[in-house]
Formats: sequence, structure tokens, C-alpha cells
Amino acid sequence: MKVLLVFAHPEPRSLNGALRDVAIEELRVQGHEVRVSDLYADGWKSEIDRADFPFLTPEARFKPAAASGEAFAADALTPDVKAEHEKLLWADALILQFPLWWFAMPAILKGWVDRVYSYGFAYGVGEHSDRRWGDRYGEGTLAGKRAMLLVTAGGWEEHYAARGVNGSIDDLLFPINHGILYYPGYDVLPPFVAYRVDRLDAAGFEAVAERLRERMRTLGTIPSIPYRRQNGGDYLIPSMQLRPGLGDPHAAGFALHLNETTAAKADGEDEIVAVPVEA
Amino acid sequence: MKVLLVFAHPEPRSLNGALRDVAIEELRVQGHEVRVSDLYADGWKSEIDRADFPFLTPEARFKPAAASGEAFAADALTPDVKAEHEKLLWADALILQFPLWWFAMPAILKGWVDRVYSYGFAYGVGEHSDRRWGDRYGEGTLAGKRAMLLVTAGGWEEHYAARGVNGSIDDLLFPINHGILYYPGYDVLPPFVAYRVDRLDAAGFEAVAERLRERMRTLGTIPSIPYRRQNGGDYLIPSMQLRPGLGDPHAAGFALHLNETTAAKADGEDEIVAVPVEA
Repeated sequence: MKVLLVFAHPEPRSLNGALRDVAIEELRVQGHEVRVSDLYADGWKSEIDRADFPFLTPEARFKPAAASGEAFAADALTPDVKAEHEKLLWADALILQFPLWWFAMPAILKGWVDRVYSYGFAYGVGEHSDRRWGDRYGEGTLAGKRAMLLVTAGGWEEHYAARGVNGSIDDLLFPINHGILYYPGYDVLPPFVAYRVDRLDAAGFEAVAERLRERMRTLGTIPSIPYRRQNGGDYLIPSMQLRPGLGDPHAAGFALHLNETTAAKADGEDEIVAVPVEA
Repeated sequence: MKVLLVFAHPEPRSLNGALRDVAIEELRVQGHEVRVSDLYADGWKSEIDRADFPFLTPEARFKPAAASGEAFAADALTPDVKAEHEKLLWADALILQFPLWWFAMPAILKGWVDRVYSYGFAYGVGEHSDRRWGDRYGEGTLAGKRAMLLVTAGGWEEHYAARGVNGSIDDLLFPINHGILYYPGYDVLPPFVAYRVDRLDAAGFEAVAERLRERMRTLGTIPSIPYRRQNGGDYLIPSMQLRPGLGDPHAAGFALHLNETTAAKADGEDEIVAVPVEA
């Protein structure tokens, strides 16, 4: 497979830097091709602004989505954004690697999303009718490819459990997994999360590294999170509400958007419904 | 009251710019003092990196949390960050205003959080013992102050409802409301959200503006979201798991972290449990 790893940590000598190297080495051992977008090292520009759309006249009001769509259609995006599009189209699998800062991506990675996810490329794709609401949530430009998060967290795993004070890690990552990866079409793999990373000794690091190597070996085969397809019949159009009767009546929150049927069928692994974070 | 509004839209002539002006005008009519951090206009630096900590030698490994703590303790933070600390300590209420891009803040606002939320100021505060796990989630530097989100979304309100395809707006905003505002101590008010903002005509704008004026009039009095206090007995220490028996057994996801008792008592307004987005 061809793998793109987008890396968002400012220090190459960090735990994140070491885990990146472990992942890349194992992927190459497995015969995969790997490319890396190292956002800090590359001096990635985080803010979407007028400078991204030099064709705008000074008098023109800047509307980000409209400008993005116009630039994409006219092949007038900036070279840094075009290079990322090329890499995304090249790759069979995308890995976003970052430290969890304030329960979300670092700003520089959010800026990669904001600027690279152009209108016409990652959203605003496909027809809107009484049967389809655009190509999104399981369909779109990046459909057929796989994507996953590789995340480090300073806090304890228990604090991110189903009843942990931070909120569950699966729920905290849903806006990214579902809203950023599934949206333009990716099959989204369960995230790889390492906890308490500020306290890792050599043995602790090796345990995380070995777990990561195993995950890299199964990058092409591990079942994806069974999100429901938007246009597959589970959601009413145009209200995009989950059809009455679907979803565990005791479920609430983001878990409603998992297809229990698909999940149960996935190699009999019931636990995939809960999108487990590996221990 | 003293109010700080942090504004994160690149275009002053945008709907966001117009809503900002509406909010500021109404707050001043009500006798409040208002200051604004206009991140794009001020050229806010989004990426936390070595340049934020000039005391680091080139050989030193850059550890963001450690460097942040050292800089805060030594009063060696950069002037832009110190200025934001001063404003946060000055203000009785904080408003974060932004367009919802990819179900999260724009990068420039995330960069404001990443850089302004210093170790020792917004986290790493207070004692850790068998009775307390630091001053966070309802306690901390900013306790006693109020905070809220002012958000615009291009999508339909129905798509952000409890069973909407995007996930519910309350859940999507939980990482910000609970993880960024409640964490350092704020009382968090229900968010103000305007939907389908790309299609607003003059009458539509005036309706949103009037709803916003009303919200600004109640900024000091509207009940806050009844999140549970970390150190109030609801969570076990140190696992930080919600104590067995607490939480609606049919609830799941982020809703577990709402205190039903407090919610029900709040002026008899049962609906506050669901943190309603005003229609």
C-alpha cells in the first residue's frame, strides 16, 4: 500500500517523533511505500485567509468556502495545498499523528484540514436530490481509502474511559474520525492511542512501540469503524435524521451513528461496536 | 460586567463580523465593558513552537508542557500570550466566537488555546491528593467567571440534532465547552449557534441578531451547563471514573457528565439537561 503520514509535533526528538519512526520502519518492512507531511518542519501555514486566494480583489468580501471552491475549480490553489491533494490522492491509507492538546488536534494540524479540505475536493461533492445529500460520510473523493489517527495523550487511560471525567476517547475523537475522515469518504480505522506519555520509561516505550508495529502490520486488514453511510437509507433526506427505529434505544450520543448490524457481522467481533482502544 | 470576546473570522464584513458588532453593541447598551481579541486582525501566531520559549537552548529538547510551565513561573511568556492572560483575568465573562469549520474551531482559535492556556495558568494548577486531582473541571484560575461559545454553522440545524447525521451540536461542542472552558474553571453557558448562515437574507439576519441581543442581555443570569465538579465527590480519585450509580443508566456518552440533580433544580427548567440550542 501507499501510506501518507501527516505529522504534527514540533520536536523531532519527542515521543511522537520516535513513534513516527517506528511506524514508518514497520510499514516499510511490510513492503509499503511511505510519504510524510511533517507540518512543523515544513513550516505549514495554519490560517486560511485571503493570502490563500490571490485572485481575490481587495474590494471583494472574502468568503472562505466560495473562494476555496473557485480556486479548486480553476486549479488556482496555492502550491502547498495542491501538493497535499496530490499526496492524498496517491495514498491508499492516511495516518494523522498528533499529541492530543486540549482534547483536539494541535492548531497546525487543524490548519492543514482547514486549508487542504477544499470545497469541491473534500466537501461540496456530488449531487443533492431526494435520494442523495452529496457524496459525504462514506462516499466522496477519498472513498475506498483507509485512514486512522495515531494519538498521544498525557492523561490516564481511565480518565478517557466510558465513564471517565474527560469524556470517552471515542467520543472525543468522533468529530475527527467521523467529521473529518469519514466525511470525504475514508474507511476509518480505530484510533491508536498511547496514554500517560510523559511518564514512559524505556520498557514502557517499547511496549507502546510493539503495539504500534502490530497495528501497522494490520493497517490493510483491520475492520474499520462501522459508521452508517449517509445515503444508504439509514438517514432521512433532507433532514438527515437517523430513521426512526434505528439505533439502540438505550444508546445516545455519537454511538447512534454506528451500524450495529455491520459491526456484529465484522468477523464476529462484537467489541468493534465500542471502537475499542487497544490496551 | 467586563466581557472579553475572542473573534476568529478572517473577514470583518462577514456574518460573523456583523454578529460580533451586534453582540458588542448590546453588551455596551447593557452597561458592560467589552474588549475584543481579533485574532486574524492581530496576526495571532497559531503554532506553539520553540520561538515561544526563547530561553530554550538549541540543544534542549522542546517539551511543550514543561517549557510552558517554566515560562509561566518565570514570567517569561511572550508578550502576546501575557496580554491574553491579562484580559482573561480582567474579564468576568469570555465569549469565543467562530465559524464551525470541520466540526471544530478554526486553526487560529485552536492556536490561541494551545498558546494562551499555559501550564500553571490553565492546567497543572492545584494539589493532587486522595481528595483532589488538581484544580480543574469547575475549579481553577478562571473559576467564578462565565464563558460561552458564539458559533455559526453552514449546515442545517436538523443535521446537528440529537439524531442528526453530523452528531448533536452539544456533543460536538463538548470537547470545547467541557474540555477547554470548564477545565480551567469557567461556568459554561449554553452555546449560541446560528445555522445555515450562508443562506441568510436580511430578515433571517435580523432574527438571528435579535436572538443574539437577547442572549447578551442574559449573559450574567442564564443558568450554566450543570457539568459535574471533578472534586465534588461524583468522580473516584485517582481513576476519575464517574462513581457507580451516578448518571442515568440509559444515558451514554458526554451526557453522563451532567449533574441531573442540579439541572432539575435550576429554576425548574428541566430542558437545561439537554443544553438546548435556542430555536
